[in-house]
Amino acid sequence: MKKEATIIGAGLVGSLLSIYLSKRGYAVKIFERRSDMRKENMSAGKSINLALSDRGIRALEEVGIMEEIRKIAIPMHGRFLHHTDGSTAYQPYGQEGQYINSVSRGELNKKLMDLAESHDVEIRFNQRCDNINWKENTISFTGLQNQEQQTTGFKLLFGSDGAFSAARLAHQMQHDRFQYQQYYIDFGYKELNIPPGPGGSFLMEKNALHIWPRGNYMLIALPNTDGSFTCTLFFPFEGDPSFESLNSKEKVTGFFEKTFTDALPLMPTLAEDFFNNPTSSLVTVKCFPWVREDRFALIGDAAHAIVPFFGQGMNCGFEDCAVLNGLIGKHQENWTDILAEYQLLRKPDGDAIADLALNNFVEMRDKVADPKFLLQKKIEAAFSKKHPDKWTPAYSQVTFSPHIRYSEALKNSIRQEVIMQKVMAIPGIENNWQEDAVEQRILQLLKPH
Amino acid sequence: MKKEATIIGAGLVGSLLSIYLSKRGYAVKIFERRSDMRKENMSAGKSINLALSDRGIRALEEVGIMEEIRKIAIPMHGRFLHHTDGSTAYQPYGQEGQYINSVSRGELNKKLMDLAESHDVEIRFNQRCDNINWKENTISFTGLQNQEQQTTGFKLLFGSDGAFSAARLAHQMQHDRFQYQQYYIDFGYKELNIPPGPGGSFLMEKNALHIWPRGNYMLIALPNTDGSFTCTLFFPFEGDPSFESLNSKEKVTGFFEKTFTDALPLMPTLAEDFFNNPTSSLVTVKCFPWVREDRFALIGDAAHAIVPFFGQGMNCGFEDCAVLNGLIGKHQENWTDILAEYQLLRKPDGDAIADLALNNFVEMRDKVADPKFLLQKKIEAAFSKKHPDKWTPAYSQVTFSPHIRYSEALKNSIRQEVIMQKVMAIPGIENNWQEDAVEQRILQLLKPH
Repeated sequence: MKKEATIIGAGLVGSLLSIYLSKRGYAVKIFERRSDMRKENMSAGKSINLALSDRGIRALEEVGIMEEIRKIAIPMHGRFLHHTDGSTAYQPYGQEGQYINSVSRGELNKKLMDLAESHDVEIRFNQRCDNINWKENTISFTGLQNQEQQTTGFKLLFGSDGAFSAARLAHQMQHDRFQYQQYYIDFGYKELNIPPGPGGSFLMEKNALHIWPRGNYMLIALPNTDGSFTCTLFFPFEGDPSFESLNSKEKVTGFFEKTFTDALPLMPTLAEDFFNNPTSSLVTVKCFPWVREDRFALIGDAAHAIVPFFGQGMNCGFEDCAVLNGLIGKHQENWTDILAEYQLLRKPDGDAIADLALNNFVEMRDKVADPKFLLQKKIEAAFSKKHPDKWTPAYSQVTFSPHIRYSEALKNSIRQEVIMQKVMAIPGIENNWQEDAVEQRILQLLKPH
Repeated sequence: MKKEATIIGAGLVGSLLSIYLSKRGYAVKIFERRSDMRKENMSAGKSINLALSDRGIRALEEVGIMEEIRKIAIPMHGRFLHHTDGSTAYQPYGQEGQYINSVSRGELNKKLMDLAESHDVEIRFNQRCDNINWKENTISFTGLQNQEQQTTGFKLLFGSDGAFSAARLAHQMQHDRFQYQQYYIDFGYKELNIPPGPGGSFLMEKNALHIWPRGNYMLIALPNTDGSFTCTLFFPFEGDPSFESLNSKEKVTGFFEKTFTDALPLMPTLAEDFFNNPTSSLVTVKCFPWVREDRFALIGDAAHAIVPFFGQGMNCGFEDCAVLNGLIGKHQENWTDILAEYQLLRKPDGDAIADLALNNFVEMRDKVADPKFLLQKKIEAAFSKKHPDKWTPAYSQVTFSPHIRYSEALKNSIRQEVIMQKVMAIPGIENNWQEDAVEQRILQLLKPH
């Protein structure tokens, strides 16, 4: 029997998945709702730059395309903090040589589509999935350019169509006891821009993720290869200040002048960008089950949309693909077993990274500017350096340790936080944190009861 | 301007709401997906009898129909427990004279529809809501008998179409940042039957809610006016035993013989009922927002579907109607203010009763057979009797105290549970619970810190 697979959604995860399946000998078709972004200038003003890290890198290496992606990636070795008083600080993300990579979503997606097509994957654009018939194993699409409807059969189907997945909705509607949750935070985001300096130079430190943490909100900036930075303002929808309250160009400029003083001179189009670019919302989606028998699975954001604050959305989706690929080999094309184990492995990891990402929002916008938190991170780093077998910081577990599952990283991070709260309660810790007694205390707290 | 309201769903809540609105001078139309249950025998084998209690009664009294409903209601003064060893026990629900009422859903719904029509409410049956256009303020329906589509305008719209509300879906699809959660428990339910005895007599105690608590599952039975009992088996979908494992008539009968020994002889059609009646699932739905501007609100299960273990689903929906009615008076037909305050008041109460109902499942199926739990309830009851101003048991707050909001009852119940855990930890409490020291300890624990 000919091996065939159908994928709904040609985003980052759908495109990568198609390459994996094609390499396994499947004839793959992708149906994509949008038009071909390689031909048209799309969805400008709504992207958050991606932070590609080790889990994603491993998945790209497996299909041999990481070298190509490196050309459009800019290493970011740490957080570069911009405080309200104009002072700055730098926090390395991990140990020497560990870094994450700033990548443009559009560029990466285009490269993945090119590569998919070079693997004989067929991508059909402007196809909106309207319905899936689980008894007949057919999908109905509307062609958005001509409003033509068509129905096509499938043997093996993947829904990789993002947080608002049409495939998931079709699954949910006809599956009794479908667990589902969509949770929006009270914060939205808006893309802003810092253009390149003279001759494509970078007007701020190039190899860092810039953060302006301001307690209840923050601005971030990630470098692009052309010398520009893509900035994102994470900001309350309502209240003061909020997207609602900054309702004139004067107010926006005045607010930035006061709050992001060092950024404002670098943002000549701030006021225009602020009102031209949309305000987007941030959702976490958890659902279950992800699969149906031997013929359907949700993957990527369609299965587990998360907020962007750990930089793991894409990395998690890519890891989904790599895990699935491993299971195809393990179970020798028995798709009932492949999909059952895929769900068993990935559902707890998807839940865990969703929770970690929500927690990290508080850390990024608020705690990174708190001296007590910074001291805690310093103590952790020192201890970890001395006892790398006993302590890997939570951020590193998620970002630089793809052999540690997200669900393990979450458990470990909770355990570490409990220990560090006890350490931070040691009298005079601000002054004596480098003393032997502190190290001994951590070693003691680490012992199993 | 003529006052008009449109309601989607002629179930218990939609029918009652229509009466309230009609009495306020609104011309009301209801669109109902199902056919007229007064003309056809409908949805047999899938109902759990309702337990009408004080919140629901108050709402029915306000529109003057409680006297009529009393004719089809059977008072239940307590829980009648049937243990595995054949012994029985009786737990009153509240104080002398406090009781809940067993009512048939179908009978009650029919009466409410009759009454709605007598108030000039127009009910159109077999109308499936397909879509709501929030810009044009129109609703599209498909007539299920002739497949004819029609679109109708609305000024003020209510979605009272239950846990799987089409109105909610139309709202959700077009509302950014719609918080939504549907959560199924791993237990389903199946309707079973105990027929009347000779001459319409009751074969078990009539004025009680019968429970066969069995740890992980339970059977309940509520009396009907014809002498029969409607039984409901709450049971795991999978595992042993489960709906899945009891896959033959012999297994069902054998299982009941061993587990529900005293019930089996009263259930002559058990094996047929078990396989003819559907296995239904149990969902909790939480969402937000419930309203749109001055023209749309979700109400009843459409806003807050809950599991049936506190007997509050209908009561909560009826209370929604009464609260809304009060706000119409308070805000003098200013629907922006009415709906905003309706949501502000009822959303926390809907969340609270959802949580209370989930908690009560554990209590009903498991704890009511636990001697330690029974002692705890006895201590609470004794203390409450002596200090009625200081302690109302949680069950009574929810069931017999409509002036206490669900959200208050939930908070109080958590506080009481914390206190009772301390009381139950008193050495020798099994023997000394009637001593003064125990009463003094509770009084002390009740003092604000």
